[in-house]
Amino acid sequence: MSQVYTDRLRRVSDALQSADIDVLLLTPGASMQYLSGFEHGHAAERLLAMVVKRDGSASWIVPIMNEPQLRLHAQKDQAIRAWTDAESFLPGLRDAVEGAKTIAFDDEARSAFLLDVMAIVPGARLEKASKIMKGLRARKDAEELARLRVAGKVVDDTIPVAVSLCKAGKTEREVEAELRRALLDRAPDSMVAFTIVASGENAALPHHETGTRILKNGDMVILDFGIREPGGYHSDITVTCSVGTPADAEAKKVYETVWWAQDAAIKAVRPGVACEEIDRAARSVIEAAGYGANFLHRTGHGLGLQVHEPPYMVAGNKEVLEEGMVFSIEPGIYLAGRFGVRLEIIASVGKEGVSLINGQSAREMPIAI
Amino acid sequence: MSQVYTDRLRRVSDALQSADIDVLLLTPGASMQYLSGFEHGHAAERLLAMVVKRDGSASWIVPIMNEPQLRLHAQKDQAIRAWTDAESFLPGLRDAVEGAKTIAFDDEARSAFLLDVMAIVPGARLEKASKIMKGLRARKDAEELARLRVAGKVVDDTIPVAVSLCKAGKTEREVEAELRRALLDRAPDSMVAFTIVASGENAALPHHETGTRILKNGDMVILDFGIREPGGYHSDITVTCSVGTPADAEAKKVYETVWWAQDAAIKAVRPGVACEEIDRAARSVIEAAGYGANFLHRTGHGLGLQVHEPPYMVAGNKEVLEEGMVFSIEPGIYLAGRFGVRLEIIASVGKEGVSLINGQSAREMPIAI
Repeated sequence: MSQVYTDRLRRVSDALQSADIDVLLLTPGASMQYLSGFEHGHAAERLLAMVVKRDGSASWIVPIMNEPQLRLHAQKDQAIRAWTDAESFLPGLRDAVEGAKTIAFDDEARSAFLLDVMAIVPGARLEKASKIMKGLRARKDAEELARLRVAGKVVDDTIPVAVSLCKAGKTEREVEAELRRALLDRAPDSMVAFTIVASGENAALPHHETGTRILKNGDMVILDFGIREPGGYHSDITVTCSVGTPADAEAKKVYETVWWAQDAAIKAVRPGVACEEIDRAARSVIEAAGYGANFLHRTGHGLGLQVHEPPYMVAGNKEVLEEGMVFSIEPGIYLAGRFGVRLEIIASVGKEGVSLINGQSAREMPIAI
Repeated sequence: MSQVYTDRLRRVSDALQSADIDVLLLTPGASMQYLSGFEHGHAAERLLAMVVKRDGSASWIVPIMNEPQLRLHAQKDQAIRAWTDAESFLPGLRDAVEGAKTIAFDDEARSAFLLDVMAIVPGARLEKASKIMKGLRARKDAEELARLRVAGKVVDDTIPVAVSLCKAGKTEREVEAELRRALLDRAPDSMVAFTIVASGENAALPHHETGTRILKNGDMVILDFGIREPGGYHSDITVTCSVGTPADAEAKKVYETVWWAQDAAIKAVRPGVACEEIDRAARSVIEAAGYGANFLHRTGHGLGLQVHEPPYMVAGNKEVLEEGMVFSIEPGIYLAGRFGVRLEIIASVGKEGVSLINGQSAREMPIAI
């Protein structure tokens, strides 16, 4: 396994040289995991950092109490600087960045750490680490694709159960709790990454937080859920169903419009196409049906060690699709105060065209009875 | 409730003026919740920000799909700038910070957002938002203290169950799952904030991540857990027990040393004492017993809307305790490869001396039989 990380560090070194950056500084999260296999959920206000120099050599800054966990993952040639609460991480950080003219800093690190770096090297040019990491992480290799397929199959297999849970009289939270159990039953070694259960008028909120609303007959229900398999790769799927026959006469038309929008976006996927074209393909269908103002978000986001990561399928994004990229296709239509429909699957870019990670969304709206 | 937020914004305005800062920019998290009641779990790479000007007026930048949720919390005089994925948040961010000479930026925001701000106003002086917020949030008012006591009682009441779960033959994960259920049984409207179950040699890691190790007779087990009550305030407690009679002959002495260290720190709490003195009080006891090198972390951290927040009881911290401050007292001794002991309770600073949020740790080591 260590060879994988050595190869990735060599690619980081190439990217740092191309971008004329001296130091890449990462805190716990997807990029650190990608380059070392190390992950740690508790890290927060105590700096734990992986420092990669332009030549690809790496070292670590770590709270002394996390040192044993880190030692299991750090490669032998990577120095470890452990610090105590009394010493603080600042001396180690100073040694890591002093003299650097350009630093790529973890996009998701606490901004307080970046302010500390700026105080140490006030003249340094600062860049987002994603500038370096995006190009490495966006194209998945065969093992990553295999993991994404395993995670995808778990949610695919859970769809029938998820729909069947949507019974009148249950609260969203009850449905969510049962959905989480159903996911863990299928994948006991995985973690539930997230779940959204949005019913009735709540389904008009794309990022509704599951609450205490009681499902009733005729409701539309959006179920958005995903797992994180043991290697850290995610799945992410959204289905929309109705509790019995939909109460809103427009529901069927909206569902079909979203389905055709998703289908159009799927058909547009191939290497060389700009990300914005995938968004355009879905959005055109929804606009033509008169719902343009009700499609409140981009069409998709990359998926891998993070649930949201580049590339983003959004207007204005001219980055082009390359073989191995993996992202969601999830158009939605939201009618405020009434209901919403979103359908999401994960696509990967094959040599010639699309290769779906999930089965395509159900063409007919599923009905929970 | 809105009067609470109006008062807090007035205090922010005072603090901004004292520190000569033009704009305070907060992203979802404890400080935003403190000033508005608004919290949102899903926010991540899409900027959702509360912008407070020097005069205490506030406005919002929000992804259009989160606008309905925000409207339930934003006060009527606070402008809301909703943005679409196609527009991006950058125009709204530009309007918010352009012309500002000094900006206090959320310590915990993604650093990518801070880099965006720096690109918009390259000459601005940047400060940590904690510089402003720490002084407001560290002293808890009566309602906050009441909430912390409610959250504290839930974990106190769960201690006997937690100890009884530590039976030989169970995995740490099984103990953790039952502990989480026991917490939710007592507080169905709360969330489990975190749980650590560290057994045997794993108990020598202060931030062990609960795993698959099977508990056996003679093990020491550290149980560290807390909940988040519906208002967002936390509890955080640590107990150490043994599975039957401890196998390690040193266990009893280590336990008693940690207990006396905690007791000394508790007795040192009163207004006007420096935070480092609380750490010193506990550490002196542990050093005197010959375990100084095995106490791997500071003595405590503040507790409130976050599990770790200022003030920190750590060497070098000369901030003084004030009435209403709330923090953990959690000395520990860790013997690598063998076992560890940590005892944690939450203390608040009363008018004259300490006022404990939890009952004091058991003087005799609890034994699970």
